[in-house]
Amino acid sequence: MTRRLNLNIGINTTGYLMQAWPYRTGSRHDIYDPDYYRRLTELAHKGVFDAVFFSDHPALITDPRARPFHTLDPLILLAALAAQVPDIGLVLTASSTYNSPYNLARRTQTLDIISGGRLIINVVSSFLPNVAANFGKEPLPPRPERYARATEFLDVAKKLWASWDPRREGEVPEDRFWDASSAQPIDHDGAFFHIKGPLNVPRGPQGHPVLAQAGASEGGIDLAARHGEIIYCNILSRGAGQAFGKKVKDRAVSFGRDPAEIRIVPGLVPIVGETREEALRKHELFSGAGSEDGLLKRFVAENGLDPDTFDPDAPLDPQRFVPDPNRIMAVGMGMGLVDLLTHETLTARQAVRRTEGAHRLILGTPEEVADQIIDLWEDGTVDGYTVQPPRAPDDIAEFVETVIPILQDRGVYPRRYEEATIRDRYGLPYPN
Amino acid sequence: MTRRLNLNIGINTTGYLMQAWPYRTGSRHDIYDPDYYRRLTELAHKGVFDAVFFSDHPALITDPRARPFHTLDPLILLAALAAQVPDIGLVLTASSTYNSPYNLARRTQTLDIISGGRLIINVVSSFLPNVAANFGKEPLPPRPERYARATEFLDVAKKLWASWDPRREGEVPEDRFWDASSAQPIDHDGAFFHIKGPLNVPRGPQGHPVLAQAGASEGGIDLAARHGEIIYCNILSRGAGQAFGKKVKDRAVSFGRDPAEIRIVPGLVPIVGETREEALRKHELFSGAGSEDGLLKRFVAENGLDPDTFDPDAPLDPQRFVPDPNRIMAVGMGMGLVDLLTHETLTARQAVRRTEGAHRLILGTPEEVADQIIDLWEDGTVDGYTVQPPRAPDDIAEFVETVIPILQDRGVYPRRYEEATIRDRYGLPYPN
Repeated sequence: MTRRLNLNIGINTTGYLMQAWPYRTGSRHDIYDPDYYRRLTELAHKGVFDAVFFSDHPALITDPRARPFHTLDPLILLAALAAQVPDIGLVLTASSTYNSPYNLARRTQTLDIISGGRLIINVVSSFLPNVAANFGKEPLPPRPERYARATEFLDVAKKLWASWDPRREGEVPEDRFWDASSAQPIDHDGAFFHIKGPLNVPRGPQGHPVLAQAGASEGGIDLAARHGEIIYCNILSRGAGQAFGKKVKDRAVSFGRDPAEIRIVPGLVPIVGETREEALRKHELFSGAGSEDGLLKRFVAENGLDPDTFDPDAPLDPQRFVPDPNRIMAVGMGMGLVDLLTHETLTARQAVRRTEGAHRLILGTPEEVADQIIDLWEDGTVDGYTVQPPRAPDDIAEFVETVIPILQDRGVYPRRYEEATIRDRYGLPYPN
Repeated sequence: MTRRLNLNIGINTTGYLMQAWPYRTGSRHDIYDPDYYRRLTELAHKGVFDAVFFSDHPALITDPRARPFHTLDPLILLAALAAQVPDIGLVLTASSTYNSPYNLARRTQTLDIISGGRLIINVVSSFLPNVAANFGKEPLPPRPERYARATEFLDVAKKLWASWDPRREGEVPEDRFWDASSAQPIDHDGAFFHIKGPLNVPRGPQGHPVLAQAGASEGGIDLAARHGEIIYCNILSRGAGQAFGKKVKDRAVSFGRDPAEIRIVPGLVPIVGETREEALRKHELFSGAGSEDGLLKRFVAENGLDPDTFDPDAPLDPQRFVPDPNRIMAVGMGMGLVDLLTHETLTARQAVRRTEGAHRLILGTPEEVADQIIDLWEDGTVDGYTVQPPRAPDDIAEFVETVIPILQDRGVYPRRYEEATIRDRYGLPYPN
């Protein structure tokens, strides 16, 4: 295998799709049971997934119609999973807005060591007012300030992660325990942070945790281009994906980086059926829409279209779907549909089958799903996917049993874990 | 067993005493090896210790003559240990000065759930300038402000820990995943914190983590009396211990608490020999003093005495040993010697054998050590001890092999783990 497909898998309480829970197996108390997450991670390990991805917000969504999407703290949960499940990488989501760099750098370096170099950090600048309300009186900082803070947060985290390196030790005299010069202060003095250092945890087995970055706003792309090694995004089609990848990599070059240090790993919602028809029916159920008409009604409502003049079989105008920048959501999540319609002419009836939960939706038999996964990977549009199963545990188990063996038979996906660190498994260079 | 001895054990890189490392077995790279801490915790589990205690500072001490005392982050390390070692309780030290209540409440509630109700939190208000330097430009807040913040920190943590309780759920209609009214905002608005809540992690198996509190300054005693369930302190003699215990419990009563909710569990440095003479020689080595004369020289230097007029065999005046309040150290750590000398008349030659590393030192054969442990416990002066072995792993292994069986034979200490939660093991009440 000269080049291989990378697959992460999203783990979110009952699964990725908010309204799929009535169709899952298990108890509703699973969502705060650590053993449930161990079982899901073991399922993912059976499927040789590169990493389990835990998205996160530090707030409880108390909408009575929804299910809690995040509960157990992922930093703590991943530390336990690192001790329980071998090999598999661990994607931690952590807020750069509401953590201090010293504490987070120390905790993540510790987790990277405990896991033997399996940690990926997805640093997010929180965008929800109900998160801000758990951290003080101040409203959310404006987006540019959040991204500026996130950028400096990662600058300083990198300095801290490298500040104590026992491999720098010289000869240690017999009456000394260590060569203390192997640890050096960082004396960081920036716009947001003033930190002396050094970190009291030494460098880990992969230099520092792999950095994931999401977000398709200009600030998000800047941050991804400066620091991102794995880019999580929504790519709904080849044209849109190639444009996005080029944009991020060109920007990275402008910051002096080698674009070969970047992997594009967008979200993907697969729905598998014994036939394509069965997959379509599952989509209608798991989305909560109930039927194709329901999907179209939701499309009309979500995009503020006029139901009286709406023609589900007329080609759509992409300009009509540019998201409102004042809407409270991650900007990147709203961009997918515009990008899709810019690169392909589609009707609403076609478009509703191309995206669910803001990510690329692929529907069909296991063979059809595998074909669509390989399709954009084969020509380099993407390096892999972050699979977001609608239901957990059901759709993780099904994907592992039905789709993974096909990818393995096609020779694009490994049958067992080989490299020890997640950095090596993604073919990413080690930091100096 | 109607009343039982509780024992925690301190785990600190090479052991508690700074200069004992030349006499320990193992590699100096052990100190940042998670597997080393797993082995130490398994040793402690073999000894049926109630809990492993990880002290902490979020800073690296770069003194070339010392060994790093804290490296791996204890929050992360304890999460891994919770998954690896059953039964044993886990004492986390965390700074109320340099954590945000929402994040820490969420992380600790998660760890309490993962461990099945085995978490104890030792909240400390950081007192070292090199810790402050890792968290911004501001110097350490003055001590009263740090304690006021710590008090409000625990007030708000208790509200957050109780804010989502699935046991409050009513009937859940079939089309709903949960009863969202089981989670309620806390709307905390205080001098230091403004937090909406609810926490997105539900109550754990023991209501909330057990709260440990250290510190013998007035602010520390207030905080212990308001929130402490397990009091970590230095008690060098019966008289001093009874006075301290009465002070904390009287203060707790003044805050409306039941003193039966408080356990006094001071530090203890045991040094075991086949004979008492061997234990004395080990003390001289592990302390770094080398001989009894060395111990006396150190005593003179540490207390600023005049070496020319110093008589090691003259009774000491306690007033001469009141610690300088401007010295940078935890106030409680300096109080032990004054308290000891206030309650017992001792010479310097006797005093240097009563305390090491600011805690009560007990020296002798395993039988003599067991006698001295039972002594202050039997009459209720203390409820147990936090054993601080000079060397790790050596002195943990030795204590488990030689002292624990005697305590078990005397019927004061259990032979196996019985209660599931650490709250039950300490006989502490569940919060409402």
